[in-house]
Amino acid sequence: MTKKNCMIAQSGGPTSAINASIAGIISAVTESGCYDKIYGAIHGVSGLKNEKFIELSENFSDKANLEALKISPAMYLGSCRVRLPEYNDDPDSYEQMFSVFEKMNIGAFFYVGGNDSMDTAAKLSAYAKSIGSDVRIIGVPKTIDNDLFETDHTPGFGSAAKYIATTMREIAYDTAIYDLRQCTIVEVMGRDTGWLTAATALARNEFDDAPQLIYLPESTFTAEKFLEDVENRLKIRKNVVVAIAEGVKRPDGKYVNASEGIVDAFGHGQLAGISKALENFVKEEIGIKSRSIEVNIPQRCAGHISSKTDLDESFELGRFSVSLAADGMSGKMAGVKRVSNKPYKAEFRAVDVSTVANKVKKVPRNWINERGNDITPEFIDYLSPLIQGEVNVPYENGLPVYANIEHLMGRLG
Amino acid sequence: MTKKNCMIAQSGGPTSAINASIAGIISAVTESGCYDKIYGAIHGVSGLKNEKFIELSENFSDKANLEALKISPAMYLGSCRVRLPEYNDDPDSYEQMFSVFEKMNIGAFFYVGGNDSMDTAAKLSAYAKSIGSDVRIIGVPKTIDNDLFETDHTPGFGSAAKYIATTMREIAYDTAIYDLRQCTIVEVMGRDTGWLTAATALARNEFDDAPQLIYLPESTFTAEKFLEDVENRLKIRKNVVVAIAEGVKRPDGKYVNASEGIVDAFGHGQLAGISKALENFVKEEIGIKSRSIEVNIPQRCAGHISSKTDLDESFELGRFSVSLAADGMSGKMAGVKRVSNKPYKAEFRAVDVSTVANKVKKVPRNWINERGNDITPEFIDYLSPLIQGEVNVPYENGLPVYANIEHLMGRLG
Repeated sequence: MTKKNCMIAQSGGPTSAINASIAGIISAVTESGCYDKIYGAIHGVSGLKNEKFIELSENFSDKANLEALKISPAMYLGSCRVRLPEYNDDPDSYEQMFSVFEKMNIGAFFYVGGNDSMDTAAKLSAYAKSIGSDVRIIGVPKTIDNDLFETDHTPGFGSAAKYIATTMREIAYDTAIYDLRQCTIVEVMGRDTGWLTAATALARNEFDDAPQLIYLPESTFTAEKFLEDVENRLKIRKNVVVAIAEGVKRPDGKYVNASEGIVDAFGHGQLAGISKALENFVKEEIGIKSRSIEVNIPQRCAGHISSKTDLDESFELGRFSVSLAADGMSGKMAGVKRVSNKPYKAEFRAVDVSTVANKVKKVPRNWINERGNDITPEFIDYLSPLIQGEVNVPYENGLPVYANIEHLMGRLG
Repeated sequence: MTKKNCMIAQSGGPTSAINASIAGIISAVTESGCYDKIYGAIHGVSGLKNEKFIELSENFSDKANLEALKISPAMYLGSCRVRLPEYNDDPDSYEQMFSVFEKMNIGAFFYVGGNDSMDTAAKLSAYAKSIGSDVRIIGVPKTIDNDLFETDHTPGFGSAAKYIATTMREIAYDTAIYDLRQCTIVEVMGRDTGWLTAATALARNEFDDAPQLIYLPESTFTAEKFLEDVENRLKIRKNVVVAIAEGVKRPDGKYVNASEGIVDAFGHGQLAGISKALENFVKEEIGIKSRSIEVNIPQRCAGHISSKTDLDESFELGRFSVSLAADGMSGKMAGVKRVSNKPYKAEFRAVDVSTVANKVKKVPRNWINERGNDITPEFIDYLSPLIQGEVNVPYENGLPVYANIEHLMGRLG
C-alpha cells in the first residue's frame, strides 16, 4: 500500500503565528513520515475546490526555510471567507472536494482557522463519516481574537497581545511629553470580545498606569459614563490614555459606532470608528486636546515583535495536530489546556470541532471591574504568560525577512 | 574659577532617537569634565522659565541607565510648543531666562529640536551675544520629518523610516492573503514633505513591489490621476497598496484633506484624513474592497524597532554638540554631512542655527518620478543606509523596558 499524502489550508484573518502552525505540521509529517507529500491548498477551501495547490514537503525540506515560515506573519497559503453550504443544499460541492482528496490520495486535511473555519472542518468531517471516507479532518485553531471555546487561548493571540501592549507602552511615552490636559483614545480590534483590548493593561508599569481606562464589548458603554470616567481621571492627572475595543456596545446591544450610535448622535458622519468619534466628543464636551489612534491591521501582522511563547506553542500545536490524524482521529481540533501560570505550562488535547464551530468565547464578566472601565488582576495573570519571550527575526538591509509569498501575488495577464 | 554647569532641553514632536542625543551629551560632558552638573529643563524653554529642572549628571552616572536612556523613545525631558517672542516684544522674558542661567551658573544650553526649536536657539544666541553673555547656545537637530536644512538627514528620521518600511512590508503580507481585487491605502506623517512616506518604498523585495503607488506632498495630487493610477495597476495585479503622505496637496496648493478638498467634494465629512477619504473614493468609483490605515503616532515612538545607525549617530551627534560648546561656539547646530553611501559614512559639522530656523527642506522633485506616483532609485539609495542595524532593546515580562519618566507623569493634587 502506498503512503497517503496530506493537505493543509488556511482561512479567516491573518495572525503572526498561523504560519508557525503550518511549519509544525510540516515538521511532524516530515519527521514521522506518516504521510508522503504535503500539499498546501491556496486560498482555503477555494483552493481545494479549484485544485490550486503548492507542494510544501519539497519547499520546506530545508530547515532554514521552515524556520523562515515559522516566523512569517499573515498566511502563507492565503485565505478565503467561504462558508460551506449544508450538505443537503449543495451535495455536488462536497462530492467534488472529496473526489479531489481521492485523486490526490489525501489521508488528512488540516484546516487552520477560527470559529468559521471550525464550522468547515465540522461539515467536512461529518460528510467524510457519512460516506465512509478515511480522510481525517483536523481543525487547527488560530485567531488574534482569542474567542474560541475549548481552548485556554488561541495561537496568534499572544503575538497580537504583545504588539498591542508594546504599542500602548510606546504611545504612553509619546503622550507624556506635553504639559497639558489631554486624552488619547486607542482603538483595538475586537468586534465582539475584548481579549485583545485587555492586553493594553500589560503596558502599565511602576510609574505609569496608562491606559487609565479600558472598555471592552463585554460590558455596556455609554457616552455619559465615559465622559464621567475621563473627567474623574483628569482630576488627578493631566494625561489620560484610554483603550477601547472597536466593538463596544450600548445598553441596547448595538455597536456604539453603528449608524444609530454615538457618532450620529453627535452629528459627525460615519467615516471612522469609535475612537475618532470619542476624540471629537472629548474635544467638544471637555474642551481639551484629544487624539485617536486606530491600531489597525499591524496588530495582526507585526511579525517583527511576535511572542516567542505564542510561536513556539503554535508550532507544537501544529505537530500535535498531525499526531491526532495519524492516530486515526477526525473532526477534532487541538485545544490548549493551561496547566500552570508560574511557571507557565500548557498541554494539548483533542476537542470536537463541532463544539468550537460558530461560537464566540467572551471575556468573563468577573474579569472586568464593576464599573466596566478596567480589567481585574486575575485577567492580567491570564494574559501575561502569553506575551513572554522574543523571537529572533532575521533582518536584511534593515528589514525583517519573511517567507517568499510569490504564489500569492495575484498577477494578472 | 569654579567650573560651569550646562543645561539640556527638548522641544517639538517626539522621535525614537532624541533621547540618544541627550545620552550623547551626558556621555561627553561626563567624560570630558568640561562642565560640572548637567541640568535638564522639563518641557523645553517653559521649564527654563519656570525653573523646573532635574539633575541628569547624577541620574545617569550609571552606564546602564545611560544606555536605557539612549534606546528610549519620545522625550525624556518633555516637550513644549513655545515660540519665543522677538526680543523687542518681550525683553523681560529674555532677561528672566538669562538670570536663571546666571543663577545656575550655566555655561552651555543645548536645545534639541526641529526648525522651530532652531528659531529658539537662534534668538537665544543672538540675545546672548547682544548682552555679552558667555552662555553658549547649541542647537541639536531631531525630527522624524527629515525636513531640516544644512544636514544630510535628521536624527530620528532613520528610526521612523525603519518602522514605516517594516510596517509597510507587514501590511503587504497581510493584504496578499485574499484572492480578490482590493486597494489598501497607508497614510504616513508629513504635512509638508514626503521624506517619511518615501521610506515605504524600502519595503519592496524581489517578489512584492508593494507599495505600487507613492504620493508625496512635493508633487501635486488629483483624485482623477489617483483613480487612473489605481485602475492601471489593477490591470496587472489584484492587490494594490498605496502609500500617501497626510499632506498631499491639490494643484492649487491646498491640502487634499482640507475642507475644500477631496473629502467634501465627495460629500463625506471631515472626520478623518486623506487615506479614509480615498478608501471611500475607491469603493465608490471602482467598486472594490478598500481599506485605509493611518499609521499614526507609533511611527514616531516605536522604540522597539529603532534603526541602530540612527541611534548611534544621534548619540555621537550629541557628543559632537558638546565639543562645539566647549570650543566656545554659540548659535551653532551640529549637522550631518554624508561622506559615502557604500559603505555609509557621515561626518558632523557646525552650521549656523539661523540658516536652519523656520525653513522646510523638501524632497527634490527629481527624486520623484515624472508622473508623481513613485520615487526614483536615487532616493532609495539615499534612504537605505539610514535604516540599517537593529538595536538591542531589553525586554522584561515580554515588553521593552525604557527609561523611567516618572517626572513627566503630571499628577495633580
